[in-house]
Amino acid sequence: MRRLRMGMIGGGPGSFIGPVHRIAAELDREIELVAGVFSSDAGRSRAAGESYRIDPARAYSDLPAMLAAEKARGDGIDFVTIVSPNHHHLPAARAALEAGIPVMSDKPATATLAEAKELAGIVRRAGLPYALTYTYSGYPLVREARARIAAGALGVIRKVVVEYPQGWLSGAAEGKQAEWRVDPARAGEGGCIGDIGVHAFQLAEFVTGLRVTELLADLGTVVPGRLLDDDCSVLLRFENGARGVLLASQIEVGELNGLRIRAYGDKGGLVWRQEEPNTLTLHSLDGGTEIVRAGTVLLGPDAAARTRTPGGHPEGYLEAFANLYRDFAGLLRGAPAPLLPGIEDGLRGMAFIATAVAASRDRAGWVPFDI
Amino acid sequence: MRRLRMGMIGGGPGSFIGPVHRIAAELDREIELVAGVFSSDAGRSRAAGESYRIDPARAYSDLPAMLAAEKARGDGIDFVTIVSPNHHHLPAARAALEAGIPVMSDKPATATLAEAKELAGIVRRAGLPYALTYTYSGYPLVREARARIAAGALGVIRKVVVEYPQGWLSGAAEGKQAEWRVDPARAGEGGCIGDIGVHAFQLAEFVTGLRVTELLADLGTVVPGRLLDDDCSVLLRFENGARGVLLASQIEVGELNGLRIRAYGDKGGLVWRQEEPNTLTLHSLDGGTEIVRAGTVLLGPDAAARTRTPGGHPEGYLEAFANLYRDFAGLLRGAPAPLLPGIEDGLRGMAFIATAVAASRDRAGWVPFDI
Amino acid sequence: MRRLRMGMIGGGPGSFIGPVHRIAAELDREIELVAGVFSSDAGRSRAAGESYRIDPARAYSDLPAMLAAEKARGDGIDFVTIVSPNHHHLPAARAALEAGIPVMSDKPATATLAEAKELAGIVRRAGLPYALTYTYSGYPLVREARARIAAGALGVIRKVVVEYPQGWLSGAAEGKQAEWRVDPARAGEGGCIGDIGVHAFQLAEFVTGLRVTELLADLGTVVPGRLLDDDCSVLLRFENGARGVLLASQIEVGELNGLRIRAYGDKGGLVWRQEEPNTLTLHSLDGGTEIVRAGTVLLGPDAAARTRTPGGHPEGYLEAFANLYRDFAGLLRGAPAPLLPGIEDGLRGMAFIATAVAASRDRAGWVPFDI
Amino acid sequence: MRRLRMGMIGGGPGSFIGPVHRIAAELDREIELVAGVFSSDAGRSRAAGESYRIDPARAYSDLPAMLAAEKARGDGIDFVTIVSPNHHHLPAARAALEAGIPVMSDKPATATLAEAKELAGIVRRAGLPYALTYTYSGYPLVREARARIAAGALGVIRKVVVEYPQGWLSGAAEGKQAEWRVDPARAGEGGCIGDIGVHAFQLAEFVTGLRVTELLADLGTVVPGRLLDDDCSVLLRFENGARGVLLASQIEVGELNGLRIRAYGDKGGLVWRQEEPNTLTLHSLDGGTEIVRAGTVLLGPDAAARTRTPGGHPEGYLEAFANLYRDFAGLLRGAPAPLLPGIEDGLRGMAFIATAVAASRDRAGWVPFDI
Repeated sequence: MRRLRMGMIGGGPGSFIGPVHRIAAELDREIELVAGVFSSDAGRSRAAGESYRIDPARAYSDLPAMLAAEKARGDGIDFVTIVSPNHHHLPAARAALEAGIPVMSDKPATATLAEAKELAGIVRRAGLPYALTYTYSGYPLVREARARIAAGALGVIRKVVVEYPQGWLSGAAEGKQAEWRVDPARAGEGGCIGDIGVHAFQLAEFVTGLRVTELLADLGTVVPGRLLDDDCSVLLRFENGARGVLLASQIEVGELNGLRIRAYGDKGGLVWRQEEPNTLTLHSLDGGTEIVRAGTVLLGPDAAARTRTPGGHPEGYLEAFANLYRDFAGLLRGAPAPLLPGIEDGLRGMAFIATAVAASRDRAGWVPFDI
Repeated sequence: MRRLRMGMIGGGPGSFIGPVHRIAAELDREIELVAGVFSSDAGRSRAAGESYRIDPARAYSDLPAMLAAEKARGDGIDFVTIVSPNHHHLPAARAALEAGIPVMSDKPATATLAEAKELAGIVRRAGLPYALTYTYSGYPLVREARARIAAGALGVIRKVVVEYPQGWLSGAAEGKQAEWRVDPARAGEGGCIGDIGVHAFQLAEFVTGLRVTELLADLGTVVPGRLLDDDCSVLLRFENGARGVLLASQIEVGELNGLRIRAYGDKGGLVWRQEEPNTLTLHSLDGGTEIVRAGTVLLGPDAAARTRTPGGHPEGYLEAFANLYRDFAGLLRGAPAPLLPGIEDGLRGMAFIATAVAASRDRAGWVPFDI
Repeated sequence: MRRLRMGMIGGGPGSFIGPVHRIAAELDREIELVAGVFSSDAGRSRAAGESYRIDPARAYSDLPAMLAAEKARGDGIDFVTIVSPNHHHLPAARAALEAGIPVMSDKPATATLAEAKELAGIVRRAGLPYALTYTYSGYPLVREARARIAAGALGVIRKVVVEYPQGWLSGAAEGKQAEWRVDPARAGEGGCIGDIGVHAFQLAEFVTGLRVTELLADLGTVVPGRLLDDDCSVLLRFENGARGVLLASQIEVGELNGLRIRAYGDKGGLVWRQEEPNTLTLHSLDGGTEIVRAGTVLLGPDAAARTRTPGGHPEGYLEAFANLYRDFAGLLRGAPAPLLPGIEDGLRGMAFIATAVAASRDRAGWVPFDI
Repeated sequence: MRRLRMGMIGGGPGSFIGPVHRIAAELDREIELVAGVFSSDAGRSRAAGESYRIDPARAYSDLPAMLAAEKARGDGIDFVTIVSPNHHHLPAARAALEAGIPVMSDKPATATLAEAKELAGIVRRAGLPYALTYTYSGYPLVREARARIAAGALGVIRKVVVEYPQGWLSGAAEGKQAEWRVDPARAGEGGCIGDIGVHAFQLAEFVTGLRVTELLADLGTVVPGRLLDDDCSVLLRFENGARGVLLASQIEVGELNGLRIRAYGDKGGLVWRQEEPNTLTLHSLDGGTEIVRAGTVLLGPDAAARTRTPGGHPEGYLEAFANLYRDFAGLLRGAPAPLLPGIEDGLRGMAFIATAVAASRDRAGWVPFDI
């Protein structure tokens, strides 16, 4: 069974996430990067292609050109992955899907909710695989957390706290990674809420299996002169009445990537932390605490199947990312991938951003959330 | 210099906090429990007196009786400590102060804000020492956190997150400790917000040296049939514009007493956690992280003076509690105790509870906070 | 039931352990410090007596004088506690026991094994309570660890690793605490091995319920000019054939008081760490890990009875110490205290020190250990 | 610049380490697996080739055949990687090197010291790159630890403690991974000492930059019926007189892969733990503790260059492994790789195993260590 061939959109010189997608896609040897529009500047795209060690002829600087040229080859790309800033997501996905090419996309789905709705229509009409790299849902112990909750280990969920503290935008936003994230023209309507708040939102729904139905948002811009939010507090209600808190910040000095989720039901509680991803803590009503560790026989089938090393040999962010590509490769080959985030998750995420931004701006208090 | 003589109000059979106050008060041998109205039931008070090993004649069942009898003795009590449920705080403090006896009181100051205002007048008129055992402000590393922030280590504070998760009221509230806390007649208008939320509030103001000026509260009652709140989310604004989040819950299964405070400024951040109280984590803008440990020479004078053991010999809750009694003993002997919580802190705490309860009930959104 | 009256031997100005014994003894209000020979210098003893706030007339500077004077009082001391450097232990204990006064003593029992043997005879002849404050065996979760092993939770013990790293003697040994510990005339034949290695030894036997029968010792003197050992590696065999490792050091820079014990059997393993004393980690063969936390209902009766606060309200070193005094008070009142270390443990400890010192000096390899 | 082409020896169906090498080698896209003798059984080798998605024609079952066939191709392999059990290492490396093919090999170098000496001669004569995957030396923060010590951050090293606890061989050794490790015919003369003790040994020398010159070994066989050691305690002396302890065990139930190293000098100390590999703890003499985190600007150039994600996005075992392949690829392209373990390290490792096994068997006490 041959490797699937991937074309990358974005990921040019200086990109953080381009190489991450490349590593993740190839980790299980089901996928191979063979082409890309790494930059709209031909020289830069060529340089990136060299750094990825692909055939120089397949480092394009124009998406329609790549789609056409690859279609013409016997060994052309099987799908594209979109890793450029948010405002590129819609046009890139549209072009690919309309050319009959499946799409893997970095999150969030688009730059605005309106774009996401448009994209949803395109995906529906195309009838092609489309998925989103909500990375954190690829961690084995996040899968385990979801499975345990689904199996009733916590009883009825009553409370969810999801936090995503970072500190790297505490000062002026300098450098390629920072600049576009604080620029409404490229990031879209959300700053912190769109960059990491949406991860927290997706994780909360993913782990609990519950949908948010109401929210109250307080987004702030702490760093002087910044145009988008950089510190977010959002209160949540879930469909079953459970209460929730979602905190995200990019000005909490010293926090690196401290995503953490805690869920509590009437029978138990659980805690997972991204910076120590290989353990899951489970609490029971009698005060007992169990630590579930990756690589042990205590993992359920979903988590076990997404673990590549024995217990105690830490896996991390790249492996979690790779788990999403593994699911996507399966999807392309015809296997179901029910936990792989798709356009519906993309729509929910964009609606979350739009709703939170508007509700906060209007000091609207509790507002319904639906999409 | 003789030990100060303490009379206890409350703390009868089955009390958790009575023995804690006794141990804390006596730990440094500056204070001695000699009398008490441990219960209004004479037999129960006598039994408690025996368990405390005090002179049986000084185990009273009536507060006026104790105040009169002790006044008549040459070796009568120097102050009372009030450890009974909230609704007793005002009448007990009033009786003592009006009899010329200083008061140490468990928090919160009273059961309602109106009572607190009345008490403030009484304290002012009496001109006698009155203090509140906001225990967590007695931890050496909380003092250190406060001192570091006051010295500018974090720069201008921008964000404060204080969380106080517990899980012990996840089920039916059974037992002496639980029952009164969920009963409005004894606890007052706040449940979780008054029991632990107010600790978190005091800690946030104490550590940062900043006052809350605005808040948005969402208090919930999760356990069916409960009359008071048991899960609280409160957003804060501080006087300098800093943003804040205060979370408190008593239904987060498996959480024991997970009070944690994090503060972030434009130059640094810090984290302190009550369940590992002997370390303080400091973050700097360059990603550097310093762990300050109790008992090392790195502690400032305030924290160092409140540490009884060398580094690595853990101190805990009882010692933190004792630090408040040490400050109070100093106050009685004429020394200043600027960091010991007093009636102003009591008023602010009760105003916090009242404001949060009302704002949440009315879904009022952001409301000003002042007292 | 009145409080037992304690006389202290040692604990003068600058003492660390004197105040610790005082706090620990009095914590449960079963015992009261009323007298002491805090120093052989009358002025210093008086100053210490003042700092302890005892009757100035009962701050003696001569042990026979104290024993005689206290005997003559109606409210004389019920026992003495010996907290002076090691070389005082034997003469002080002998004088007290021969005067009919029970003895609580800091560890190790004496300065040399020969002294310990002499003391054992005295204790036996006196027929009076004698106990040793091997503090760490007073921690509730150490009691829990012992109980779990005794109940077979780990199966047959195969391996024990006990480590006691400190760093405070990495440089010149300055200050009251350091000076006597590095002086053979006061500390005895062991340096680090006698100060902390013996704690590790006692803890290993206490937790496992197994006796060491053979050892191989490598003691080193790392700091130039020092006369006693400051870094110890000892291999152990237990009576059932289990293998053991005991490490103790006072030159591991940055380590505060990192005592840790791990025990492994054919069915499970456990880990306890003194610097986070309120949790006990249990491992099972299937890779499962349980965290047992102080103050939860999961504790057995022995540990539960030695816990004063609810879960999440940390107890520490002073409370563990107090648990030994609680046991000792019980003993004086006629209750059994089977887990309180006594003269047999003292003898074993001194034999451990002597055997390790000799075996290391002689590069003797494995030597039998018995007493 | 094209990818280097790798042929694998070993790594057939059921192999744990084969896929790990494949992922690690390819992670940076400098290397590509193209061929292999995955098994000496043709069907099994073909099946493995399919699982790796390589050209079926290049899944060989005979090493000479692979070497010949690949040499004949224009796109033949650039090097082999040896991932089979220890007893295959020498013959496989010999065949490759004699065919002019560079070798990457799993550790330990060979099954016996005699073999290692033979191999050293072969490598020297061949004049071709040969390296060993001592994985743990590839972790960025291990590199940082080494760099800090080399720069004098700890002063003169006095003490090193390296521990490698595992528990997975606590019971009967079942399954492909376990079976060969407990079989002298395949593992060689060391069990636990050769499987993981040698990792600890290499890490200690790597991090400190100091060579072991003397050792005392106590290897035990705990599980009944086992032929090789499964629990090891080794005392060390380093060339500068520093004292050391090396512990390794495979019967410590519940320990997964708890490799930990601590080094202490006269100015500071450091701690690194493999299961939380993205932090390094540094202690200074004043009790200060600094946590150095991967992905921050505080890392030196060597560690920074071996980090692929920003701080807080955990990297783990596979990425550490990949760092060794990155160094090896550089070596093949002509760049220096001074920290990549080579045949000298292999010889030292085998001498360590042989010396420890013999010294323990003979109860020889301290023995010199040299190679």
